Amino acid sequence: MAHIKLPNEELPGIIGLLNYRPETAKPLLDLAETLLRGPSSLSSGEREIIAASVSYWNECHFCHTSHAAAAAAHLKSDISLIDDIKAGLPKTPVSDKLRELLHIAHQVQRGGKNVTDEDIAAAKDQGATDNEIHDTVLIAASFCMFNRYVDGLGTWAPGPNEAYTEMGERMAHVGYGKF
Amino acid sequence: MAHIKLPNEELPGIIGLLNYRPETAKPLLDLAETLLRGPSSLSSGEREIIAASVSYWNECHFCHTSHAAAAAAHLKSDISLIDDIKAGLPKTPVSDKLRELLHIAHQVQRGGKNVTDEDIAAAKDQGATDNEIHDTVLIAASFCMFNRYVDGLGTWAPGPNEAYTEMGERMAHVGYGKF
Repeated sequence: MAHIKLPNEELPGIIGLLNYRPETAKPLLDLAETLLRGPSSLSSGEREIIAASVSYWNECHFCHTSHAAAAAAHLKSDISLIDDIKAGLPKTPVSDKLRELLHIAHQVQRGGKNVTDEDIAAAKDQGATDNEIHDTVLIAASFCMFNRYVDGLGTWAPGPNEAYTEMGERMAHVGYGKF
Repeated sequence: MAHIKLPNEELPGIIGLLNYRPETAKPLLDLAETLLRGPSSLSSGEREIIAASVSYWNECHFCHTSHAAAAAAHLKSDISLIDDIKAGLPKTPVSDKLRELLHIAHQVQRGGKNVTDEDIAAAKDQGATDNEIHDTVLIAASFCMFNRYVDGLGTWAPGPNEAYTEMGERMAHVGYGKF
């Protein structure tokens, strides 16, 4: 049971919280829509992988599994992608640029000051642009918020990966604006 | 110098980043305006103290000092409040309820799963409502984002407390929507 009384206790993770407080739901959803589905030279699949990876490092089961399922929906991949993200993507073909951006995201997850000039240079060597670095840092930072929001209020989350397939399809193809 | 090329390098902290990417600036500012200046049974001064405290725990000098200056502007207090927030408010009269909410914010800053039923019960014993607990968790979570955004992109920040007085007045009395 969540730490506060939610009107729709059956709604998992952030969904019940967005229903509880529409005034804050609006900017939170607008931010997710812009960062994950707005115009970008990073694909939505790549951006959802960053979001899901940060959520895994923050041990947020709901955010990790739902955003990994969204990545799988974008990339038309098997839901085994969910576990592959946990393992650091040994089985998924991803670009060297995305691997460097994921490293930057991991530094941000630990704390903003951890990002070094060398981390930035390594990403730029693999072709990352300033916009891509900006959005990677803000995606990582924003999931440090979303994860703490979901877990800090003690929301519940479905367990198995399979329970997130439909949610991931909806996040990928309907989006966050239509919530 | 920031990790990415900003068009207005002289703008400190988050201000240069908001100018760089207006699409993400809008929801970020809407969120800050709602959480810190929107209708609430917590005063804006109390909410800025939570924001400034979390920023201090995350070692984000720009966010800590600017939001502490905003708290001082709301509370019409001396700018010595900035240093008192760093020390855990030994000199500032704050309610027992706010002290319990600050404890919850600190748990969230360390990670969402740290918030316990006992932390929530202690805040409720001091009169905290569900809305106040919700907003405290989301303020703390959102500053874990803002702090990582500002430091993860290597922005610069003015040093001395006095350099933030005017910024704090503007944040308190003009707000985040008019940015």
